[in-house]
Amino acid sequence: MEYIRNGEEIYRKSFAIIRAESNLENLADDLAQVAVRLIHSCGMTDITKDLEASSDAVKIGRMALAQGASILCDSQMVAQGITKARLPQNNQIICTLNHPEVPEIARQINNTRSAAALEFWRPDLGGAVVVIGNAPTALFRLLELLDENVAKPALILGFPVGFVGAAESKLELAANSRGVPFITLHGRRGGSAIAAAAVNALAKESEL
Amino acid sequence: MEYIRNGEEIYRKSFAIIRAESNLENLADDLAQVAVRLIHSCGMTDITKDLEASSDAVKIGRMALAQGASILCDSQMVAQGITKARLPQNNQIICTLNHPEVPEIARQINNTRSAAALEFWRPDLGGAVVVIGNAPTALFRLLELLDENVAKPALILGFPVGFVGAAESKLELAANSRGVPFITLHGRRGGSAIAAAAVNALAKESEL
Repeated sequence: MEYIRNGEEIYRKSFAIIRAESNLENLADDLAQVAVRLIHSCGMTDITKDLEASSDAVKIGRMALAQGASILCDSQMVAQGITKARLPQNNQIICTLNHPEVPEIARQINNTRSAAALEFWRPDLGGAVVVIGNAPTALFRLLELLDENVAKPALILGFPVGFVGAAESKLELAANSRGVPFITLHGRRGGSAIAAAAVNALAKESEL
Repeated sequence: MEYIRNGEEIYRKSFAIIRAESNLENLADDLAQVAVRLIHSCGMTDITKDLEASSDAVKIGRMALAQGASILCDSQMVAQGITKARLPQNNQIICTLNHPEVPEIARQINNTRSAAALEFWRPDLGGAVVVIGNAPTALFRLLELLDENVAKPALILGFPVGFVGAAESKLELAANSRGVPFITLHGRRGGSAIAAAAVNALAKESEL
């Protein structure tokens, strides 16, 4: 069979197709660069219309990672999707979803396990890059914690997916991010691959 | 903030919205059930138009898993996305991408690491459920191995994503699956969440 077998060539050709077919004009240059990588992760050029970021979010995210910020993930899939070799400071990747006390805390706070897992983010939240690629309840819970005046993360990458709460949680984030810079994809679309791609885009400017 | 915090309620409501909004009429009943879970994983009801499966693929996949088939994944994200509690036989989940010899084999066979990782699938391929949620080259390579008469898997779940090779590899799978049952999503869309959702749908009939 005839197909391209060279990984680097696949990347280059993919990014060239994305740049040719996507509507990137309305995005700031640095956000457009992130958008290209998000598009690459999901195969959909039309996500640019749903992308929103606070001003300087990309710059702030790049700086935080360059200074060694921890990366807090709501799911193991997001954690797995981060390309370790791109991280500038071998940044710590933290996912607390499988902490043994999470199910009990979920019962106590009457919320999902994804939301309960954030209890164990508290010591690492200040200055961290938070990446939510699965659960709307994790994003809602993060905003609740910020209302309780926990230490602020450097950046929120808000990409929960689905039919219940995803669009709503991202609207809430964009309407009032509690003073924290953010990047989000409005609507039902999102997910761990797109969320991890956002980290990978911020981690290193070079596309390869 | 007002939001639904009960995990089970979120699932039920999500599936109800999906059933109300999706075009499932043209799919066989058991494939429609799988489609609902795929839609749930990506937030997009319109994927049904790109879904294709060989006849009895769902039935065969369910049976294979019930009989303890191993699950071969092209990426760690796919492996992480499989809900272990849904598996009927605590089925083995195998991802060989990080095997230390993969980079060297990739050089030798002049292909990507994702394709090279399949060399280590050989002893487990017969009767397995193969799940490709990332790399088109892994799906192409699988078809090449089948042309070399390796032991046939029970089912191919073909969901590679992206701009180079994804659509092409899935067209090749659907045109000639080498006698192996398959489920695939045509076009550029796909990815680890959708691929893992396919396994989760086959693993257990109940949606919760």
